Amino acid sequence: MTTLRTPGPTIGVVGGGQLGRMLAEAAAPLGVEVIVLDPTPDCPAALVARDQIVADFDDEAGIRELAARADVLTFEIELADQEVLNRVSEDSGTPVHPDPATLETIHDKLVQKRELEDAGVPVPPFREVEDADDIRAAIDDYGAPVMLKARTGGYDGRGNVPVESKDEADDALESVAGPAMVESFVDFEREVSVIAVKGDDEIATFPIGENVHVDEILRETIVPARSSEAVEERAREVAADVLEVMEGRGVYGIELFEAADGDVLLNEIAPRPHNSGHWTIEGAQSSQFEQHVRAVLGWPLAATDLRSPTVMTNLLADVNEEREAELGDLDRILETPGATLHWYGKRQARPLRKMGHVTVTREDASREELLETARELEDAVSFRS
Amino acid sequence: MTTLRTPGPTIGVVGGGQLGRMLAEAAAPLGVEVIVLDPTPDCPAALVARDQIVADFDDEAGIRELAARADVLTFEIELADQEVLNRVSEDSGTPVHPDPATLETIHDKLVQKRELEDAGVPVPPFREVEDADDIRAAIDDYGAPVMLKARTGGYDGRGNVPVESKDEADDALESVAGPAMVESFVDFEREVSVIAVKGDDEIATFPIGENVHVDEILRETIVPARSSEAVEERAREVAADVLEVMEGRGVYGIELFEAADGDVLLNEIAPRPHNSGHWTIEGAQSSQFEQHVRAVLGWPLAATDLRSPTVMTNLLADVNEEREAELGDLDRILETPGATLHWYGKRQARPLRKMGHVTVTREDASREELLETARELEDAVSFRS
Repeated sequence: MTTLRTPGPTIGVVGGGQLGRMLAEAAAPLGVEVIVLDPTPDCPAALVARDQIVADFDDEAGIRELAARADVLTFEIELADQEVLNRVSEDSGTPVHPDPATLETIHDKLVQKRELEDAGVPVPPFREVEDADDIRAAIDDYGAPVMLKARTGGYDGRGNVPVESKDEADDALESVAGPAMVESFVDFEREVSVIAVKGDDEIATFPIGENVHVDEILRETIVPARSSEAVEERAREVAADVLEVMEGRGVYGIELFEAADGDVLLNEIAPRPHNSGHWTIEGAQSSQFEQHVRAVLGWPLAATDLRSPTVMTNLLADVNEEREAELGDLDRILETPGATLHWYGKRQARPLRKMGHVTVTREDASREELLETARELEDAVSFRS
Repeated sequence: MTTLRTPGPTIGVVGGGQLGRMLAEAAAPLGVEVIVLDPTPDCPAALVARDQIVADFDDEAGIRELAARADVLTFEIELADQEVLNRVSEDSGTPVHPDPATLETIHDKLVQKRELEDAGVPVPPFREVEDADDIRAAIDDYGAPVMLKARTGGYDGRGNVPVESKDEADDALESVAGPAMVESFVDFEREVSVIAVKGDDEIATFPIGENVHVDEILRETIVPARSSEAVEERAREVAADVLEVMEGRGVYGIELFEAADGDVLLNEIAPRPHNSGHWTIEGAQSSQFEQHVRAVLGWPLAATDLRSPTVMTNLLADVNEEREAELGDLDRILETPGATLHWYGKRQARPLRKMGHVTVTREDASREELLETARELEDAVSFRS
């Protein structure tokens, strides 16, 4: 039986970027307090959180302090160190959700793919790469191009290199500079994702979103995705299967390829709220952030139904070099019916850095109209004054 | 042209209760910072706000500090002292919205009613009360019962005394103990309210809500109200007329009587976000709190359309005496599709104190179904462990 007092339960979050900030925004109405640990003083989440511990993500003393002040620990970045988290959790008795073992699984894309394949999750053909011959063998087997991926440390497309022919194998491997894997290149119809939640003894999945990437960075999410009902159903099924492999409660962002024939293949997993789930704040009956709060506390999960067609567009810094962040001419965003601004509170703009996002949702508009509006709004604002 | 940097603009709020808390929750995604002034250490808004200045609402030194740290001042309680606010604003150059003159007008119900009547706003017949004869004269003119009201300091029905006959006039006046006015008792069909926003050079009104009071304390707001379209239109018209009288930007909660013949009469005005507007957070395209943020900053206002039928129920402390707040058995609320909990973070429960609220909204449900659900949820939780 869930009860609530003041102060309410406290969640300690490793990482205090925009995900931590939106987590704290979702926690506040529930009476749940958030403390973040982040090396950047006055990080984005600090404004909304109860407190910030200024320390590196793997700083054991900092994480011990966080554990001592929290009822449960979680993380909003994959950079969290699973060994440190495990040790601190065991010593302090403060649980960590999701389980750090999940971080370890996901951290290494090869390990991740193997475990998922073993569990029956559909993944593109892949193999371990020890030398350039493995890449050439993959091209023989899968056909060109193939996708060479750093096994660890990739993010927003960093560490992913398409290899068009066998001649490029050596250079590609050198550019990745570390343990790698190679995957068949999926000729996808569209990229979709499912935000999935693992609760105490229940799971929930949100309606699938269609993701538009440019240069491997997410630009827009469109909901409902322009997929068939069968694909929607299959994608949510796959997401549920993925959750079987994941240990510990929380929200997972599950990126999928929808192939031309309607097949659904796993692309990547993030063991945390995900950029492609930001649309849920306005677009769904509950948000991915509220669900993460509920899940890590062991509270019942909320309904995930779509409220109305929704498009989310990222506000990426359109600057050529680092400079102080200033977003010009917000009026178009502020004046557009159904548009909601989320500003992340980052002080510095860097090229293509995620500075905020805008969600557009309306009962009386189609997703195509909303997408057009979202693109107009994204075009109208600029970080170049 | 609105621009946004980090840190964003800062709003200094006199008062840090639940209204300040929800204001800070709405400000965060916009990159707007909130500092509250409140005498209670760790007041409800403190969790979400950038900072709290611990000082009495009329503490001039505290308000000077607030003004020095803010770009604009506002208030979430009528107890704010208009003279102090005016003086500090003039000295510091930090504007106050709404204008403190509005506080003064509203503070005295007689002055308020006179100004509104002069401006053509429909009000029930009323008169000043200097002695009990004035009450008896009112009964002659309007018929019994009449409503005797303290001119200042009333809140949640305190200071309002129905007078059933001339015999009761002396006792009633004594019980009010201060300057009073008397009003014709409106035999209303229902009580409705309009949340109205005065922006820089525009106004906006939300769809009207139907309010259910018990013992003069708001229990539920139902949207759409069960009124005719003509009444909805008239109520929003009256609200717009009220805004003409109010000075300075911000959100106003405008409580109205809907008479049996469809006439709309003004009941009371709050120069701030209002309990009867909490439904807007989930139920409307924007919330009253976001609108107040936008208005006081002089930003464009947002769309106010209804998103789906919505019922808000207050969680009042069902305790017989003051005790530490503990809300039992939340699970029903957490598990109900479309229900959203707002917990205000008050440490002490007192009889009928507003401790939080629950909003229920769903596309696929009628307001009657939502009202039934809301009442079940309100019944299911208790502050008596």
